[in-house]
Amino acid sequence: MKKLSIKSSSHSYPVYIGENIRFNLSNLVRKSYSSFLIITDENVGGLYLDDVKQSIGISDNIHHVVIPAGEQSKNIQSFYALHTKAMEYGLDRNSLIIALGGGVIGDLAGFVAATFMRGIDYIQVPTTILAHDSSVGGKVAINHELGKNLIGNFYSPRSVIYDVTTLHTLPLKEIRSGYAELIKEALLADQELFQDILQTNLDSLSNSKLIEHLKKGIHIKAKIVEQDERETGSRKYLNLGHTLGHGLEAELGYGAITHGEAVAIGLLFALYVSEKEFSNNLAFENVFHWFHRNQYPLHIQNMDVNALLDRMRLDKKTLMQRIQMILLKKISEPQIMEFDNYKLEQYITGFISYLNDRMTS
Amino acid sequence: MKKLSIKSSSHSYPVYIGENIRFNLSNLVRKSYSSFLIITDENVGGLYLDDVKQSIGISDNIHHVVIPAGEQSKNIQSFYALHTKAMEYGLDRNSLIIALGGGVIGDLAGFVAATFMRGIDYIQVPTTILAHDSSVGGKVAINHELGKNLIGNFYSPRSVIYDVTTLHTLPLKEIRSGYAELIKEALLADQELFQDILQTNLDSLSNSKLIEHLKKGIHIKAKIVEQDERETGSRKYLNLGHTLGHGLEAELGYGAITHGEAVAIGLLFALYVSEKEFSNNLAFENVFHWFHRNQYPLHIQNMDVNALLDRMRLDKKTLMQRIQMILLKKISEPQIMEFDNYKLEQYITGFISYLNDRMTS
Repeated sequence: MKKLSIKSSSHSYPVYIGENIRFNLSNLVRKSYSSFLIITDENVGGLYLDDVKQSIGISDNIHHVVIPAGEQSKNIQSFYALHTKAMEYGLDRNSLIIALGGGVIGDLAGFVAATFMRGIDYIQVPTTILAHDSSVGGKVAINHELGKNLIGNFYSPRSVIYDVTTLHTLPLKEIRSGYAELIKEALLADQELFQDILQTNLDSLSNSKLIEHLKKGIHIKAKIVEQDERETGSRKYLNLGHTLGHGLEAELGYGAITHGEAVAIGLLFALYVSEKEFSNNLAFENVFHWFHRNQYPLHIQNMDVNALLDRMRLDKKTLMQRIQMILLKKISEPQIMEFDNYKLEQYITGFISYLNDRMTS
Repeated sequence: MKKLSIKSSSHSYPVYIGENIRFNLSNLVRKSYSSFLIITDENVGGLYLDDVKQSIGISDNIHHVVIPAGEQSKNIQSFYALHTKAMEYGLDRNSLIIALGGGVIGDLAGFVAATFMRGIDYIQVPTTILAHDSSVGGKVAINHELGKNLIGNFYSPRSVIYDVTTLHTLPLKEIRSGYAELIKEALLADQELFQDILQTNLDSLSNSKLIEHLKKGIHIKAKIVEQDERETGSRKYLNLGHTLGHGLEAELGYGAITHGEAVAIGLLFALYVSEKEFSNNLAFENVFHWFHRNQYPLHIQNMDVNALLDRMRLDKKTLMQRIQMILLKKISEPQIMEFDNYKLEQYITGFISYLNDRMTS
């Protein structure tokens, strides 16, 4: 088992990464709690809920709620219903919420913990590769119908317990989704990791390689959020690929493509714009080939570019109605840049037609 | 104009108290913001919205939302609708929310600010006496149908701008409501203020006397929240009178009596139980007489005591299903005490019948 430590403004917390550590929760959760509420989804619950319950102990005070899987659950209705459950189960300020699942569960259960009686403890037990990113750094949120993650808090977990054995059951689509965030982190800060991922074939990913990549990705993420927890500066760089990515997710309808698949297209767009703006040669071709070889969906059909721009304008980086994008001057050298509507529209139109040409040629 | 300064864990903020200072907002709000959203209710909006808008300046970026007055607005639907408005008006992370109104507006608008894009700045512009309490200390929340203030955050404002001139338009019912919290603060920490309030007739309250009481009340509140912002210890004392008070409000239906009127009954109950538990002679009689003389509603009719206990158990101080009450060993010496159901039921039944006897005798 590996252990990283993350500093937040309110407290430090450990990230444990290891095999089968879901069976060891009661030792990893040091504090004693009056009761527990495990929040999970239908997919993950069927696989790991019993393990986690038994791992905490035998008690009347261990409750659970299973919600439908998918981004659609990250809404205000689920949020309120989870509060109702927490009250009905008699949770109090000394209770612990356990987020067992992917990013949707982590964001939603974390936001419930952040707001239940003005904040109680929670831990993240991520079960996807994608959630290596969202489980660290304390960003919790639900979606608004107008945009993703627009209602939320900065609220750090008490620990992150990452049992990589649970990743074995992931479908390839979810592995792809997670690796988009890993590539993003590599592009921001680690040329070596970037090259190593480009050498990796997701079809035949080994467990040791996955753990190595996850550990490096979490390390990059941790360094950035420690410097700028509340995203007033450098944490914005973690939005590389997300300005278009979030817009695509909202415009296509949550769940139509995975978050990571949307981020993959967003990363290509960021590289495309970076190469035009800075006349550099980043790695668009290499990344495009790697995404293509690993079967990321890269076609964008029948897109209303103006509607997409409206979605992008609701991005949390937007200031005075002007969209901000993270670009790369070179690998490990991100930069934020502001665009007016016209220029961004030109870039998006050009990018979509370039992408579609490449995919059909 | 008087100025107090409050330290919170994230920043310090000023509380300005003075006459007609609502006309001076642009000078008191130091930072420059990309846009403004004033949240107010129908009553206050009709009186002061124009003053506040003009005081900020002439700009396309000053928006407002007027919601129905009353505790019923402090719910999840209003919360979501305000987020929608904030997005439609194009608010960004450099925008400011202005809570113009009483405690309901302050709590609701503050919670919207705390969660909009994971937190933007807000200021409190309280227009009731009661809100001298809620506007200081950073507690923001909405109600859940099962209990009051159960969904919220600790999130401090950037400043509190308290124009006491706006208090002139308050009906007597609202003055009563505010003075219940002032008496509570006096009981917790200031024997002299307590005696002075008991000498005050609310019918003929002078402006100078009111300012003096508000300043002292805010000072007491500020000292307590600075010591224990997140209510792990001494801040709980500010709940004096609220365990029963919140229960009554929920059980009678929000809006049936004002918050302060419910707290007044709760304070009498806390004094009643304190005198029995500690065999002391606090001031039950004096406080009862003062409430009675100032026409606080002290009758409790047809109350289902078990339903009331269920409501009280949802109090945020409850631990392991056991209700915690704040009692007074003597004035300025609060103490937290845990009760089992049976004992509390006896006390409540005894108290209600005692109160009703006194009121009909």
